[in-house]
Amino acid sequence: MKIALDAMGGDNAPDVTIEGALQAVNEYDDVSVELIGDSDVLWKRLKAERKYDEKRITVRHASEVVDMDEATSQALRKKRDSSIRVAVDMVKKGEAEAVVSAGHSGVAMATALTVLKKAPGVDRPAIAVLMPTVKGRFLLIDAGANVDCKPDNLLQFALMGSSYYKAVYGVGEPKVGLMSIGEEDTKGNELTKEVFKLLKAANINFIGNVEGKDVFTGMADVVVCDGFIGNTILKVSEGLADALMKMLKTEISGRMASKLGYLLMKPAIRGFRRRTDYDESGGAPLLGINGTCIICHGRSTSKAIKNAIKVANQLATANINKIITEEIAMSHKQIRKKERQLAEG
Amino acid sequence: MKIALDAMGGDNAPDVTIEGALQAVNEYDDVSVELIGDSDVLWKRLKAERKYDEKRITVRHASEVVDMDEATSQALRKKRDSSIRVAVDMVKKGEAEAVVSAGHSGVAMATALTVLKKAPGVDRPAIAVLMPTVKGRFLLIDAGANVDCKPDNLLQFALMGSSYYKAVYGVGEPKVGLMSIGEEDTKGNELTKEVFKLLKAANINFIGNVEGKDVFTGMADVVVCDGFIGNTILKVSEGLADALMKMLKTEISGRMASKLGYLLMKPAIRGFRRRTDYDESGGAPLLGINGTCIICHGRSTSKAIKNAIKVANQLATANINKIITEEIAMSHKQIRKKERQLAEG
Repeated sequence: MKIALDAMGGDNAPDVTIEGALQAVNEYDDVSVELIGDSDVLWKRLKAERKYDEKRITVRHASEVVDMDEATSQALRKKRDSSIRVAVDMVKKGEAEAVVSAGHSGVAMATALTVLKKAPGVDRPAIAVLMPTVKGRFLLIDAGANVDCKPDNLLQFALMGSSYYKAVYGVGEPKVGLMSIGEEDTKGNELTKEVFKLLKAANINFIGNVEGKDVFTGMADVVVCDGFIGNTILKVSEGLADALMKMLKTEISGRMASKLGYLLMKPAIRGFRRRTDYDESGGAPLLGINGTCIICHGRSTSKAIKNAIKVANQLATANINKIITEEIAMSHKQIRKKERQLAEG
Repeated sequence: MKIALDAMGGDNAPDVTIEGALQAVNEYDDVSVELIGDSDVLWKRLKAERKYDEKRITVRHASEVVDMDEATSQALRKKRDSSIRVAVDMVKKGEAEAVVSAGHSGVAMATALTVLKKAPGVDRPAIAVLMPTVKGRFLLIDAGANVDCKPDNLLQFALMGSSYYKAVYGVGEPKVGLMSIGEEDTKGNELTKEVFKLLKAANINFIGNVEGKDVFTGMADVVVCDGFIGNTILKVSEGLADALMKMLKTEISGRMASKLGYLLMKPAIRGFRRRTDYDESGGAPLLGINGTCIICHGRSTSKAIKNAIKVANQLATANINKIITEEIAMSHKQIRKKERQLAEG
């Protein structure tokens, strides 16, 4: 399985992207990585590296790089030879099975969408992000690709999220919850009330409304919401976790006994951080397009890149796009059948 | 200043409500509290209490109690002699300056709204909740009273939130941020893009869009959003903080050195908890009605009740409703003036 890696994307590229690729190739036998970017720079760094399997790490030149603060439309139109564009083109041409990027996430998404196009039957591709719970993890979908949504879009997010969870975790019937405010069936806003009815009728294991206070308990495997809510949840969680660690440190500093306590607690704190660290989850797939595309955080470490390559490999191997297309076609058929039944009385 | 306290409202009522009232009267000279509820029960418990100023703690009988899981419409229609209803009626009749309740928050809000009515010019009263930041606190408005909003509603939330912050914290020009996804002016969903223009033109210190990752840094004093988003943020924060503490404990258990570390760190952890504890903020006001109404968490401790009584007293003293009514009238005038100017070319 060949993964096209946008080697120039991310705050610490290409150091962490190269290192992540090397780790991935060392750890997984069935993966090879093509590094896309300035070939002079990439070769120079690769040559300084320890020994690696040269057949499984290759380089392809791209003359441009998208900056982190560039306008998406401009980058799309003008930078036809950017590292992200060349990487996505490889998937389009069948020269790679998946693309991974930690660069400008808006541009990465828009490029994947423009070049690879929506999968058959999908109205709105969506970003699926794994978040930690007390017991394990849940999948949040949509985490920011679609800010204004119709009920049908959320139905498709639920179908795609459920298929993804099944494919990656081997869970037979993932529990799908609808993000709302209030657990009763009738609670929520206009959008979620409509979505509730659709999810109730859909061919998924729908457990009803879930609230923000419940999601971290592991009550649902997949949590469905529009991209504005999803992105807000994602960023509030990130911001709060950072703030809590800072507050804890402020409380500790100046207390001698506490400082000693902190040292003794360090292994526990390290373990705790690992559980809440997005590096572990390995980026977020853009689901519902013709191809596999993993978007990573700009701050990704080499470990995050390695894990993203792993997830890309898993999704491409499981043929997630085919599964999603089939699920959505089946759902459409089911809806048409219901409509016919209603029409015939 | 007399505060009507729904003594039967809350998971641990009337024990914590009575204790909270006693603490408030002991701590603040200018406050008296009327406990509303089953007078037999209330008197019996009061008599068992330590000495207190009998002139400043009084009891009024109410024969009914609203259960935590009761349907709001039913409770409103049928329980005319419930403790929350009698308490709100006191404000209506001018027999108390403010009402505080830790009971069924939907019923408390609906009762306050039905009995006291919206303040002149206010379209949608809103709940304002204080949340912790690394530096201090920010005010989240609306935190759940209005799930589907129009741009004008969010403009009013901004005006009310700014007035409240000024009145309670004495900050001249509170920094008002609009909750969005992406800090650039053009980012957000249909609603926030419209609201952005209104806030830009409003007579407040508008600092632009803020993201979930920024709010806990203390970047804005007041964060404006619709009630669905606000309630989600509130509950996600609550759920995440709980989950993080649980994860930390799980990591600690089983590690001897860490257990010792935890003991040594306890004072710091206690201090940290105090900063993130909603007990400190003392409930959330329902702004934009003719009267002062503070809604507390059902899990409120006596300290939370005491703090809510303090906030009720502050708001009534500052005459927050008059300030809000004036701010909104001024904003309406300003908008009409602009419209006239546009019409006249």
